[in-house]
Parts: sequence; structure tokens; C-alpha cells
Amino acid sequence: MSRWEDNVRKVVPYVPGEQPKCTDIIKLNTNENPYGPSPKVMEKTIELEKLRLYPDDKATLLVEAIADYHNVKPSQVFVGVGSDDVIAMAFMTFFNSDKEILFPDITYSFYDVWAELFRIPYKRIAVDDNFRIKREDYYCENGGIIFPNPNAPTGIVESLDFVEDIVKNNTDSCVIVDEAYIDFGGESALSLVDKYDNLLVVRTFSKSRSMAGIRIGYAIGCEKLIKFMNDVKFSYNSYTMNMPSIILGAESIADEEYFRSTVNKVIETREYFVEEIAKLGFTCLPSAANFVFMTHESLQAKEIFEKAKENKIYVRYFNKPRIDNYLRVTIGTKEQMDTFIEFLKSLV
Amino acid sequence: MSRWEDNVRKVVPYVPGEQPKCTDIIKLNTNENPYGPSPKVMEKTIELEKLRLYPDDKATLLVEAIADYHNVKPSQVFVGVGSDDVIAMAFMTFFNSDKEILFPDITYSFYDVWAELFRIPYKRIAVDDNFRIKREDYYCENGGIIFPNPNAPTGIVESLDFVEDIVKNNTDSCVIVDEAYIDFGGESALSLVDKYDNLLVVRTFSKSRSMAGIRIGYAIGCEKLIKFMNDVKFSYNSYTMNMPSIILGAESIADEEYFRSTVNKVIETREYFVEEIAKLGFTCLPSAANFVFMTHESLQAKEIFEKAKENKIYVRYFNKPRIDNYLRVTIGTKEQMDTFIEFLKSLV
Repeated sequence: MSRWEDNVRKVVPYVPGEQPKCTDIIKLNTNENPYGPSPKVMEKTIELEKLRLYPDDKATLLVEAIADYHNVKPSQVFVGVGSDDVIAMAFMTFFNSDKEILFPDITYSFYDVWAELFRIPYKRIAVDDNFRIKREDYYCENGGIIFPNPNAPTGIVESLDFVEDIVKNNTDSCVIVDEAYIDFGGESALSLVDKYDNLLVVRTFSKSRSMAGIRIGYAIGCEKLIKFMNDVKFSYNSYTMNMPSIILGAESIADEEYFRSTVNKVIETREYFVEEIAKLGFTCLPSAANFVFMTHESLQAKEIFEKAKENKIYVRYFNKPRIDNYLRVTIGTKEQMDTFIEFLKSLV
Repeated sequence: MSRWEDNVRKVVPYVPGEQPKCTDIIKLNTNENPYGPSPKVMEKTIELEKLRLYPDDKATLLVEAIADYHNVKPSQVFVGVGSDDVIAMAFMTFFNSDKEILFPDITYSFYDVWAELFRIPYKRIAVDDNFRIKREDYYCENGGIIFPNPNAPTGIVESLDFVEDIVKNNTDSCVIVDEAYIDFGGESALSLVDKYDNLLVVRTFSKSRSMAGIRIGYAIGCEKLIKFMNDVKFSYNSYTMNMPSIILGAESIADEEYFRSTVNKVIETREYFVEEIAKLGFTCLPSAANFVFMTHESLQAKEIFEKAKENKIYVRYFNKPRIDNYLRVTIGTKEQMDTFIEFLKSLV
């Protein structure tokens, strides 16, 4: 072995959900939106003629669109290449002490991967038997806190009071609330960012905005938090947001009507799906997201997962303690869910 | 001050070249290509209709296009959000020891910023009085080596023998050769990657491929090097390359004829410009890039920079020791350079 290998940062990389290349499948495994982005987005591709130039390093067009939309100052908005980039930057920026950071044991599976990559000590705190986060568990010395609300892969949302309790009991730490799925249910913590200087709220264009392919995430917090993040970002890569993401992302924000109508369709389909599969003996955790976390009284989740795949229906199965008899199923179109329901009927 | 601020990673961020929003200027300050990307690239924007889906996390279409083009295996290609992202990932992956990494004192100004961000010890090694890198200075214990070839902001290229000497005298370190500008002159070290497992060659779409706005950089090395980098990348963000960059980037590679013709135009214009300004008392370091580093026998660089800006011509001035009487001027179209020459005549 060459000695240069001694210096390599060795990590166990994250394994994303399968992205099959064939197009004749029903893809309910990575929480994408079944509806396309606003048609107005495509009209803007003509502006990509300017690709020879560097994009605006401050992504002003996009940042201002987001700030206007949420009624905050542009200096309170940080944008990144998907919320993964945003959260990774936040970890590097704010979780820089020797104390353990805290997050739930059942949650987005990237948190421990980032902690390992950046050598941040961490502690997973068990959710209760109903998969609920217990707020009191987070009232202790720590180097930072992160949790998604709604949580993933459970879909369970906690109240604004609940979130505020965690934030105000941890004023010496940065608390990150990952709201990737909040548009599908629940109350956002954005209303708290001007009250607590330690709260960072993270959002994404990948779910409710139907633009997973464009890779846009953002964070909103007090100006000071955002300034610290931007300093780190500009020490990493000045031009993370490419021109298509700035131009097409801003246009997506402009089409509120389309956004609301597709989000509502997903919510309606979710409620319909949950009712229908209840008749087949499935129960779902209460979901406020664009997916459900479902289990059956007698059928094994792993078996359903494999058989579904044979039938060209892709859902997500996690072979992990406590959740290995659940499936995470993205809400597709009503037609896609009907096909999946028919498949489930054939198993029961 | 809230105590959470104690844990913040504090850095002095990089300041990118000015990106003025007005369009009626001659912009020769950030080494963009004056010609647009291949017209075929724009024809592919129609495929962005699939934006609701996550992009292929392995960016296969783009990786295979690059691999084919350079006649290496896809497993020897790493892609990132501009070469800044690629090099930052390489720093995190390979420069993970307590030993100092080495780079020239006059070079791309991001190297020390990354070292600071990732807490990597580093040492700047002085180039000689003619701004040449001295290879013997790099034959010592180190934690890694990086240098651009051609170097920036000088534009000076070193021979393949020179590069090979540094690589083979440092088999215990990873040696990164940043070839952002190599298409405009000089011999690439790509021919050495199968011979030396410690060599990583980095390229970008921002200069010769006229696509600074799309943010694509890549690295080529032995399979093992690339595997280590991908492990770190997948621990950071699985989907860094968005759909526009994958689709439009691959299309750019396909249009070799357009690529060659625009690169040749830039080279011709550079030679013309250097000759013309010599008549006005300017000298340039020998440039193998799409910019020249120029100085005048009596006029002060800073003054030219400011007056040019008043005349809506933007060039780059570095207020740094040793180079504070030079201007870095991007090669634009012949018409743009003629306008700049006229302006210079008015000063002399």
C-alpha cells in the first residue's frame, strides 16, 4: 500500500434510494413528486443561453424570491445544492465543538454520515414506542440538535409548541429543524426564526416543489446564523448554485397557484391511500408528508418490498432495527396508488 | 454573545472576482469564454421536463462522456459542482494528515482558503523571480501537493517532464494538478494517471467549454483515488450534479468541432493581443491560458484597473505582494480586445 493512503479520510458513504434507469416502473421509493414542476419553469430555459458566464455567486434572484415568499430578509436566506448541501454546511459551520450533537435514532439517515465525515461526536436518542420524539430527552448539554419535522421515514409531525420548547431549552446550541416535508402538513417553525437566534429552518425544492432534479435547498434563520454559513460556503465553493437552478428555481416560486394545487393533490391522494389500505390490514403512522410509513398485521415488509419490485413498483425498505417491518411509500398519482393497492390486494 | 457562537467554524471567506449585474460592460475579469457553449447544448434543454425526479446520483451520462473523451474508464472519473467542489473534496479526502501540504505562493487563491476551512496545515512555496515554480522545492516531506498547470494568475505552463518529476518524487503524497486552463496550451498530465497512483488531474467546463454557468468540474486518476473521493462525496451529498448539468454537460462533450474552433479563436486572439500591447510598452508573462498577466514599464497596474472600470472594462487586479503591478486580463473576442487596446492607447 502506498503511504498516501494513510492520509485518506475513510468513511462509509451514504447509500441513496435506488434510482433505476428503466422508465416503465412505478417509482415510489425516493419521495419525489408525481407532478412535474410548474410549466412556467420550462419557459425560462431559454435564458440558459448565458451559460458561458459564471452564475451570480450570491444567487440573488433565487434568494430574493425565497425571502419574499417567506417574508424574511434576503440576508436571512442561505441556498445550497439540495438540502443535503445546506445541512452539511450547517454541520460544518455550527457543530464545531467537542460535545455530542443529538438527533433521533429513527430519522433521516444522512445525519450520522455527516457527523462521521466531519468527525463530530454524536448521540442518537431513541424515539418512543409510537415513534414520537420525546422533547425532554433534548434538555441536556449538547453540541447541537437536528431533527426533521415531519420526521422521516415516519412522517410524524410535531406541533410548533413542541419545536419551540426544544429551541428555547437549548439557547447555547444551534437547533436545526429539517422541514423537507412541512408543506404536506404541520406548522412551520419559520415563525420562530426572528425570536430565537439559535434556530435554523431548512427547506427543499425536491418534494413539494417537484424539482428534485434541480437540487435546491435553503435555510432560514437570523442574519447572524446565515452570515456564518455563507462565510463557510464561500470558503468551500463560491459558485455552488448553477445558472439553471437560480433561474428555474426563482420561476418555481413565482407560480404559487400551481404549487398549491399539486401539493393538495398529493395530500388528497395520501388520505385516500391510507383509507384504502386500512381495509387490507395495513396501518400507517400518522403522516404529514408526501409518503406513508406502513406496516401489515401479518405480511412481512421485506417480502412485500421484494414482490413489489418484481412487479415494477419501487418502494423503500430499511433493513434497520425497530423499522424493519415497515415500508416507506411515496404518494404518487391516484392511478399509481390504485395500481399499488391492486398489487397489495393480490398479496393479502 | 450566545454560547452557540463558540462552536461556530470561523473562517475568512474567499472573495470571488466581481460579477457586475449590468450588461453593457466588457467583462475580462473572471476568465470566462467569450463564445457561448455549443448550440447543441441548448437543444437539450427540452429534456429538463424530467426535473421532478432526482438526477442520477452517479451522473452516468456525464461521467461516461468524459471517460470516453479522455480514453479512461468511467471509474477513473469524479465529477463535481465546478472544479472548486472537486478540489475541495480532494482536499478533504487526501490531505488528512498532520503534515503540511505544499503549493506555490503565487497561485489560485482558493488553496489556502480550503486549507483553513478544513484545518489542514500548509506551506506556500515561493515561485522564482520569473514566476516559475521550482520543482526541487517540492522534494521534501509533505502531506500533499497541489499546483495549477498552467499556473494562475501567471498563465505560465510547465512541461510534462516537470510535472512527472514532482509526481514521482512524491509517491507517498497525493499530487493534484489543476488543469483548468490546459486546453489553451501545454501538455496534459492525463497521460500519466495510469502510471502513478498518486496523481489526480482536475479539469473544468468553465473555461475552454464555455460553460461557467453550469458548474461542472472533474478529476481523473487511478480507480482507487476516485473511489476514495466518491466515498467522501457520497458522505456529503449524493446528488451534487443536477439534471441540467448532467444533460447539457454531456452534450457539450459531444460537439468536439465547436469546442476546438472556439478554443483556437481564443488562442489566436491572445497572440494578437500580446503583440499589440507590446507596442505600447506592456509585457506579458508567457501565457498558455485564456488570460494574460500583463505589466507596464511605467503605468501603474492599479491605476489602469480603476480607469478601465470607469470605462466599463472589467479586468482583475490583485493587491498582493509580488503581483501588485500586474493585471490579469481574460481574452475576449477580437472586438473586445481591440476596444481594450484603444483604451490602453489613450493612457500611454
